[in-house]
Amino acid sequence: MLEFNRPLALQDRENDVLTVGELLVDLISEDYGDAHEGASYRKYFGGSPANIAMNVRKLGIQSQLAAAVGDDGLGKFLLDRLLSEGIEPAFVETVQEATSLVLLTKSRATPIPIFYRQADYRLSYRPQLEEILRKSKFLHFSCWPLSMSPSRDTIERMIDTAKRHRVWIGFDPNYHPMLWPKDEDGVAYVKSIIGQADMIKPSDDDAERLFGKDTPDNQILKFLSLGAKLVVLTLGKDGALASDGKETIRFPTLAAEVADTTGAGDAFWSGFYAALVRGHAIREAISLGFAVSAYKLRFTGAVVDLPDLETIQHSYGL
Amino acid sequence: MLEFNRPLALQDRENDVLTVGELLVDLISEDYGDAHEGASYRKYFGGSPANIAMNVRKLGIQSQLAAAVGDDGLGKFLLDRLLSEGIEPAFVETVQEATSLVLLTKSRATPIPIFYRQADYRLSYRPQLEEILRKSKFLHFSCWPLSMSPSRDTIERMIDTAKRHRVWIGFDPNYHPMLWPKDEDGVAYVKSIIGQADMIKPSDDDAERLFGKDTPDNQILKFLSLGAKLVVLTLGKDGALASDGKETIRFPTLAAEVADTTGAGDAFWSGFYAALVRGHAIREAISLGFAVSAYKLRFTGAVVDLPDLETIQHSYGL
Repeated sequence: MLEFNRPLALQDRENDVLTVGELLVDLISEDYGDAHEGASYRKYFGGSPANIAMNVRKLGIQSQLAAAVGDDGLGKFLLDRLLSEGIEPAFVETVQEATSLVLLTKSRATPIPIFYRQADYRLSYRPQLEEILRKSKFLHFSCWPLSMSPSRDTIERMIDTAKRHRVWIGFDPNYHPMLWPKDEDGVAYVKSIIGQADMIKPSDDDAERLFGKDTPDNQILKFLSLGAKLVVLTLGKDGALASDGKETIRFPTLAAEVADTTGAGDAFWSGFYAALVRGHAIREAISLGFAVSAYKLRFTGAVVDLPDLETIQHSYGL
Repeated sequence: MLEFNRPLALQDRENDVLTVGELLVDLISEDYGDAHEGASYRKYFGGSPANIAMNVRKLGIQSQLAAAVGDDGLGKFLLDRLLSEGIEPAFVETVQEATSLVLLTKSRATPIPIFYRQADYRLSYRPQLEEILRKSKFLHFSCWPLSMSPSRDTIERMIDTAKRHRVWIGFDPNYHPMLWPKDEDGVAYVKSIIGQADMIKPSDDDAERLFGKDTPDNQILKFLSLGAKLVVLTLGKDGALASDGKETIRFPTLAAEVADTTGAGDAFWSGFYAALVRGHAIREAISLGFAVSAYKLRFTGAVVDLPDLETIQHSYGL
């Protein structure tokens, strides 16, 4: 049972959050005129589960990351970064395929990504992964590992294990057709997973890709009808609308200053999980998620140097 | 029959050389210290068959290129470059997968590539490809399209068609284990193709990867025993050793000045094909190949602004 005014009933476990899925390199064009020979791209650490695993540690709770990289220079770069953030990559598998890469070309409109997915979706289900999952309070994943097998099978088995061992499931239904194999109905599959999760945080764009255009209240109802227990629908500058199935609450945005929106969603999840682990009621945890997100928005980069949760809580008067 | 002192018997065809295979983007690190966040990579046009198709036009003969790119920004970049070189990309297929990419990290020793092969090996055998092949004097390909299917099946069908229609086959046996699927014996497969080709140009490194370390004369014998008709074994600074099966000749290097070795092999092939089309005997054509290669070595970049074949011939006193 999930209710806005209650904290979550959490098991006593050695790990707080286990994030699973994409760990990859973002290559981002330096300028808009990228069509010329010799155009420059810069390399960045990427992948939402990795960002969340790093963020929550800064906020003051425990995390582990399960992912797959290649046995190559880019994989080494990612592992080195995790180590420098204090994450011993014990659950990051090294596979034969190349480390996954996203090439992002800046654009005046929406940046256009090209996906080079090789290692990330080769994540396999192994005994040590089951063991760390059973020792965790939360399991978190996005649509990335669900879009292809074997990582899809790995997540499905993790969902089963999580349910049997009372691990709460957070799912980011960030469905995008570009991520999915062309001959598969990704929308139907993502809908089938929404009912398996305890908490989902779609954006209004995600909702539109899954259900078509509609009002935020109607989109919330559609997620609930699929079996979602807690829905946090983010609405950009308009804040968010959230429902626990009985009540729907509007959350205003806390962001006064926006330097860079990259990683804002990951920052929300990070603050939300940290607050739940600290024993806050769900409603407060959502507010604290948005406070962490607002803090991150003031700085450039997906992962910024966050203070601990209590510091952010006080600075936003929560 | 191939003999050093005779020109090739060429059919009267509207196209001279049809090159088939990899057309891709090279992303090359700007400095050796590439391990840091934000390290810069530069984007370049790449792929040996495309380089040869562009070179031979500058030397004064006709070419066409058959390849596959993705329907994305990198594919558009490659097609734009071909158009700017006067190559109407009529035989470049656009496929659903992303344009292939090679990420090259500079190193004090050998640069280490990571391959992101998506579109390039999706090249299919289509009626228009068969048609242009039948209208060509030479078919040229390297190990790239052979390393994976469906492009492997496409090349096998093109070899059949070439043999039925007296199209001469030039093959670059640039075998490298990194290019091949891990569970396949690439060496055995490449050996089986060598006997199907009329002309091959292995480097000493290629020979070592296929046969192990041995003297250049012995390596030549091994290629001949596989059924190769004309073998040009390049030996870096030591020039080359070539055999038509009856005679083995040493060619000294013509390169007095080396600015950049990238594309030197493609330049050889380009000069060799252009000279054969111009009616030179095979021995002269090999010398002219090395003259074009020596010319290219003076400049930086895989494809440089070559003058026509006769200009290069005179400037090297051939």
